[in-house]
Amino acid sequence: MPQNSENNSNHLEIEEEISEKAKIALIEYDADNYQDKEFENVEDAFKFFHNKSVTWLNIAGLDDVNTIQKIAGHLNIHHLIVEDIIMANQRPKMEDSGEYIFVVMHMLNFDKKNKDLLSEQISFIIGRDYVITFQEKIGDIFNGIKDRIKQSKGRIRKQGADYLAYALIDAIVDRYFVFMEKVEGRIEELEDEITNDAVKRIPQKLHSVRSNIVYVRKQVWPLRELINSLTKSESKIISKVNNVYFHSIYDHTVQIIDTIEMCQDILGGLHDIYLSTVSNRLNEIIKVLTVFTALFIPLTLIAGIYGMNFKYMPGLDWQYGYYFVVGAMAVIFVALLIFFKQKRWF
Amino acid sequence: MPQNSENNSNHLEIEEEISEKAKIALIEYDADNYQDKEFENVEDAFKFFHNKSVTWLNIAGLDDVNTIQKIAGHLNIHHLIVEDIIMANQRPKMEDSGEYIFVVMHMLNFDKKNKDLLSEQISFIIGRDYVITFQEKIGDIFNGIKDRIKQSKGRIRKQGADYLAYALIDAIVDRYFVFMEKVEGRIEELEDEITNDAVKRIPQKLHSVRSNIVYVRKQVWPLRELINSLTKSESKIISKVNNVYFHSIYDHTVQIIDTIEMCQDILGGLHDIYLSTVSNRLNEIIKVLTVFTALFIPLTLIAGIYGMNFKYMPGLDWQYGYYFVVGAMAVIFVALLIFFKQKRWF
Amino acid sequence: MPQNSENNSNHLEIEEEISEKAKIALIEYDADNYQDKEFENVEDAFKFFHNKSVTWLNIAGLDDVNTIQKIAGHLNIHHLIVEDIIMANQRPKMEDSGEYIFVVMHMLNFDKKNKDLLSEQISFIIGRDYVITFQEKIGDIFNGIKDRIKQSKGRIRKQGADYLAYALIDAIVDRYFVFMEKVEGRIEELEDEITNDAVKRIPQKLHSVRSNIVYVRKQVWPLRELINSLTKSESKIISKVNNVYFHSIYDHTVQIIDTIEMCQDILGGLHDIYLSTVSNRLNEIIKVLTVFTALFIPLTLIAGIYGMNFKYMPGLDWQYGYYFVVGAMAVIFVALLIFFKQKRWF
Amino acid sequence: MPQNSENNSNHLEIEEEISEKAKIALIEYDADNYQDKEFENVEDAFKFFHNKSVTWLNIAGLDDVNTIQKIAGHLNIHHLIVEDIIMANQRPKMEDSGEYIFVVMHMLNFDKKNKDLLSEQISFIIGRDYVITFQEKIGDIFNGIKDRIKQSKGRIRKQGADYLAYALIDAIVDRYFVFMEKVEGRIEELEDEITNDAVKRIPQKLHSVRSNIVYVRKQVWPLRELINSLTKSESKIISKVNNVYFHSIYDHTVQIIDTIEMCQDILGGLHDIYLSTVSNRLNEIIKVLTVFTALFIPLTLIAGIYGMNFKYMPGLDWQYGYYFVVGAMAVIFVALLIFFKQKRWF
Amino acid sequence: MPQNSENNSNHLEIEEEISEKAKIALIEYDADNYQDKEFENVEDAFKFFHNKSVTWLNIAGLDDVNTIQKIAGHLNIHHLIVEDIIMANQRPKMEDSGEYIFVVMHMLNFDKKNKDLLSEQISFIIGRDYVITFQEKIGDIFNGIKDRIKQSKGRIRKQGADYLAYALIDAIVDRYFVFMEKVEGRIEELEDEITNDAVKRIPQKLHSVRSNIVYVRKQVWPLRELINSLTKSESKIISKVNNVYFHSIYDHTVQIIDTIEMCQDILGGLHDIYLSTVSNRLNEIIKVLTVFTALFIPLTLIAGIYGMNFKYMPGLDWQYGYYFVVGAMAVIFVALLIFFKQKRWF
Repeated sequence: MPQNSENNSNHLEIEEEISEKAKIALIEYDADNYQDKEFENVEDAFKFFHNKSVTWLNIAGLDDVNTIQKIAGHLNIHHLIVEDIIMANQRPKMEDSGEYIFVVMHMLNFDKKNKDLLSEQISFIIGRDYVITFQEKIGDIFNGIKDRIKQSKGRIRKQGADYLAYALIDAIVDRYFVFMEKVEGRIEELEDEITNDAVKRIPQKLHSVRSNIVYVRKQVWPLRELINSLTKSESKIISKVNNVYFHSIYDHTVQIIDTIEMCQDILGGLHDIYLSTVSNRLNEIIKVLTVFTALFIPLTLIAGIYGMNFKYMPGLDWQYGYYFVVGAMAVIFVALLIFFKQKRWF
Repeated sequence: MPQNSENNSNHLEIEEEISEKAKIALIEYDADNYQDKEFENVEDAFKFFHNKSVTWLNIAGLDDVNTIQKIAGHLNIHHLIVEDIIMANQRPKMEDSGEYIFVVMHMLNFDKKNKDLLSEQISFIIGRDYVITFQEKIGDIFNGIKDRIKQSKGRIRKQGADYLAYALIDAIVDRYFVFMEKVEGRIEELEDEITNDAVKRIPQKLHSVRSNIVYVRKQVWPLRELINSLTKSESKIISKVNNVYFHSIYDHTVQIIDTIEMCQDILGGLHDIYLSTVSNRLNEIIKVLTVFTALFIPLTLIAGIYGMNFKYMPGLDWQYGYYFVVGAMAVIFVALLIFFKQKRWF
Repeated sequence: MPQNSENNSNHLEIEEEISEKAKIALIEYDADNYQDKEFENVEDAFKFFHNKSVTWLNIAGLDDVNTIQKIAGHLNIHHLIVEDIIMANQRPKMEDSGEYIFVVMHMLNFDKKNKDLLSEQISFIIGRDYVITFQEKIGDIFNGIKDRIKQSKGRIRKQGADYLAYALIDAIVDRYFVFMEKVEGRIEELEDEITNDAVKRIPQKLHSVRSNIVYVRKQVWPLRELINSLTKSESKIISKVNNVYFHSIYDHTVQIIDTIEMCQDILGGLHDIYLSTVSNRLNEIIKVLTVFTALFIPLTLIAGIYGMNFKYMPGLDWQYGYYFVVGAMAVIFVALLIFFKQKRWF
Repeated sequence: MPQNSENNSNHLEIEEEISEKAKIALIEYDADNYQDKEFENVEDAFKFFHNKSVTWLNIAGLDDVNTIQKIAGHLNIHHLIVEDIIMANQRPKMEDSGEYIFVVMHMLNFDKKNKDLLSEQISFIIGRDYVITFQEKIGDIFNGIKDRIKQSKGRIRKQGADYLAYALIDAIVDRYFVFMEKVEGRIEELEDEITNDAVKRIPQKLHSVRSNIVYVRKQVWPLRELINSLTKSESKIISKVNNVYFHSIYDHTVQIIDTIEMCQDILGGLHDIYLSTVSNRLNEIIKVLTVFTALFIPLTLIAGIYGMNFKYMPGLDWQYGYYFVVGAMAVIFVALLIFFKQKRWF
Repeated sequence: MPQNSENNSNHLEIEEEISEKAKIALIEYDADNYQDKEFENVEDAFKFFHNKSVTWLNIAGLDDVNTIQKIAGHLNIHHLIVEDIIMANQRPKMEDSGEYIFVVMHMLNFDKKNKDLLSEQISFIIGRDYVITFQEKIGDIFNGIKDRIKQSKGRIRKQGADYLAYALIDAIVDRYFVFMEKVEGRIEELEDEITNDAVKRIPQKLHSVRSNIVYVRKQVWPLRELINSLTKSESKIISKVNNVYFHSIYDHTVQIIDTIEMCQDILGGLHDIYLSTVSNRLNEIIKVLTVFTALFIPLTLIAGIYGMNFKYMPGLDWQYGYYFVVGAMAVIFVALLIFFKQKRWF
């Protein structure tokens, strides 16, 4: 299970506490102009709002409750939504207040050292001419979009805040795609490992992949609902024309879910193959045991019989007795070998 | 399965019986005033109702049918609801009579001695300016809320009975969160135990965790419906403004259900790993058995052959015969060892 | 699978046949009056209908087609419903003709001798002022209700035919509760049996419990629908006020279904534990086999070597040779013991 | 999987081809009159249509495309429906064109020789005063209905074409009941076989039953939808009064589905029991192996030790040495026996 | 998992790049006229559009973004649809813009060399009098339809673009049928292989079939929705009369899904049989091992006892001692044989 550092189950009355300051970055643009700034105090950013250009405010650092509450105060955001932004481990959801749309979802990240799946909560407040993003720490996920805005690539500069929101959410959903591709690759590796008889810790590896898939599924299912309600919301914040973009994200989430289900089916099948492999291996070993026992034990008995110390035993004095007995042993040995060969035991 | 002391299946015509007296506690507050009292007779509490302040009456002791029926009589509550309050093991449900909303649900408790999951039924009657809670015995679950009222922390004193109901139900739902966190911790412990080869009673432990989850699921599924109908009810008891709080409880129940499903998937995977571990262990043992048998049985045959008492046996009189045979044994031994090594049997 | 004596699949055009006479019992009551009678001919009962009092006619004996058709004729009941009453093994269902409501369901019974689950079909025709019940033979299930009517306990005498129907159906549904409690008890017994290593016929016992649950589920699922449509029907036969009673039966069926699902989950877990127990037992035995083989086979080889009849063998003439070899055997024995101990094999 | 002789996946533009002639049989009746005829050419049958009496035309032989297309031409039937009639392996479905209702479904048949499940496609075209049935070859399934018409048994002669259609479809659905009863019988046989230790080819037998059930389920699921839409169709072809008959078929299909699900659950349980039986049998055998090995190997070692050829061995010269050693062997043997007895190994 | 060469997860802003030229083929026809042409530049094709005849333009080569964008420009197609056409691995879906209907789906292909399942994405743009198909490379799938148009077989020349679209989609869906037939054949082969004891790599083979089915299911489920929305769309592009053809494709997809589910059930059953076969085989081998050990070990002990070197041993001097002991061995041997025979161990 991916780890989250914060406690999920408490629904505290938030007290104002001064903790690590959040990093506050702002980008403002329209078709012709572009500027980006960083601030110490979030109040300095407020004057960039509602300027007919699109304003994107990014807050990195969810411990800085003070800053977040100032934004909430400025934009008249409900205190339960503030709680949702601050508390980690929220279920992906969307709320439409009329004035703004609130979206909370999770971004997947890869801990390259421990090969573990990390997830980070990202919240959006989408207004008519602004988007505010809240994340735990600054990552690389939005860099591509920043570049597209700065260099005016594609149609992003000609579009409003709703298109920006689409681009940001799409970047996060794409990470799921990338992750599922890695999972598919991992599954193919495991398919090879299993057939190549290198059966070390296969169940643990299968379990680890399955756990990751289960976690992603837990994220993507509500994400699908979320984006579905975004596309169906009658909010004026998302223009009818740009609705089609959110619909394409919806298609992506459906496709991720399809892939997840397919992977789960295939993983189940791989586990079956692994069990069969282990079971066949056991059969092989027991065959060897049986063959050895069955080949040698009768001969040992014969040797034992002729090792008895009776005074009167036929053949002991016969000159060729020894050769005869050893020859009989050889015949028995070969006969048993042929018998087992016919049974296809080796 | 968690134990309940009372019989569930009988739907008795309730006869008036005098049993253990319930403990009757009352808190009355508005933004400016606060008082709490305890009563011997529930009739003494009735005069505190309908005073424009919020009244919270807590009845601890479901055997005291008399007291409960007096309340029902005073507030004109349907006798089937009285039955629901008294009979343990009710399915979580909500009924809206117009005058009041009836809610019955279960609180999770931990029997620290037996490490068992206990559940206690709690019923609510929520009116426009009062909340009545019925529980089996006084616990610690509502202490936090009592403090918040007394010390006027947060917004509880400024809100009505609906907010109080929200706070109480939220406290109960939070327990499910806490429990699921314990379950997640337990699952991680089991993951470690299984990989650390300490395989004592793993299936029993997995089963115990699974049974607990199944029990919680049985509680949370109807709880979700319950709270969903609370948020969708058009009752005047819950104000439109405070509906958002019940909606946040709804989100919590959905999240608990997600976690439950994830845990169930992971538990299934752990069971598979356990079975593989056991199966691999068996393979290891049988390998040892096979190696021992296969190494020594042929040599024993050779020794047996030279122990036969034939008069005429070649080599017995040869001076180096013994050394030659023992040497041959050693060669066979080493050859078999190498063979098994190549088969990766040890 | 519970046995039913009659053929289910034929949908015969019913011919009039004279078979075993049904037992015809009638109870008529209102708040003030009560009488009960038994009849030879059903026509004698007809004059008690439509008297402003509540009439309950109980027909025990489904072979007496003649009697049932006379009732159908008198009350103008569709011939397909007559077929449904007569043919055993009907799926629980409800039909509302406007004039009467037809309900068919199954009562659970316990064959104490064979510990088998029996089920008996009971049909109801519920009119505005009468209830007719059809059952195979007279049992004890309705005795409690007969007493309550006779002794005017509770509110039954003050209510109409709809309340009587509720009481009768509720009595049947309560049997399901009782049965599921027995099943829960049986499951706990099996939990103990499995952990106590008394593994005789566990799979058969688990299977028997599971079959019973499957049968009950097959009954309760349509029962839930049935009662749901009863509560939602706009029939004038069930008064709005008494609808709440049928709703409480509905809650019961939902709770039974919850319990069934929980039991199925737990049974699945028990089967897993059983399999693990068997598998561990096998491991134990094979460990013993391996230890014995591995401890004694090398020593046997040594004894065999010194039993060879070579003329020139070093040590045979040495005075302490025997003691040395036996001592060496003891050392090997102890060394292997320690080795296996370290491997935790016993 | 049941075999079908014709190819399913091609959707040919039908060319007129002269193949095996279909057998054309016609029954015409009303309350007072009855006649049945056979024809060489289907055109001869057309004059019997629309005579105010009910006309039932049965075409046996789906290769005779020519005949079928003549009927389609006469009654103005869409060419896709003609394709559906001709192509085997159609999914059960119903189409209502206004003028006629088209129904295609499958009849179950038993190949008594190979004990295999056969299925034959039967199509119906139901008009206001006629029913046309298309089947591959004449079977015995409709004989009962022919007799009822001829001998005027029951209400069939007094009813219209919709009742005839009901009777025909009901006859087919009844076959499913009969089949599921056979399946239930087969499952009980298998239950006995498994407990009676006659474990030959049990998995294959279970699989064969399961495959049959899977096939029937594949047929009955769409059949249920089909009949549901029949009952809900607002077609004038089925009179409101007779709708109740189709509703009773619907109840039957639901009941068959219930039985199928119950059988699948029980089959799953039987497979578990079988696996446990096999596994217990293996345990038994390995116990015997272990006991034999463990009882005799230590004694063999002792015998081997006293068979060594050391000159100086204590006890060899002792008069009672032999008796002492053999006695010691017996003691060890008995001690081990008691030990294994305590472990309940035999 | 089938391989796709292109990356799925990126949603690039498409830059104009000149890559491999697409092959552009056009067929224009009405009831009386027919012509087919190939073009270098797609602009040359545009003049054939909107001529009252039906125009079918086929573009083979999805890398030629330039050509595709020219078409999009000419027909005013949304750039997200262009992306969907170009990016491989789209989920099957349909979009109705009013002016045109966009459909994307996958065609199954068989790599005869590697016996692998290949899938190729095919997109359709269906207008009122034209159909444009986009595929990766020219295959044989549409050849039958080209012939039918050219030779005016069936009703295709008399119908409009909607019928052409139906014919093309139907050809693709038929491939799924063909594939599922192959799968059914493969499953029957595997059934034989498993019973014929040729158990090499059975789990891998089962897994491979299951993976293929899972992949097809992933394609067919959205395909069913797609075609369902086609039949339910109120688009003027598909005439009411021809809607029935799309409905027949819908029936086909439902039937494919039924077959898929049936195959999955049967595959699960086959895996169970395979496991039982392996397990029985193990039992057989262990029986042999046990019989050999149990038959010979006691005799070896007897031989060992009489090989001891005690001076005073009874019977050694007896003339018939040897015969007596060997006879006793034979008796024990036969007695054990009979015992094992009774236990049915061989």
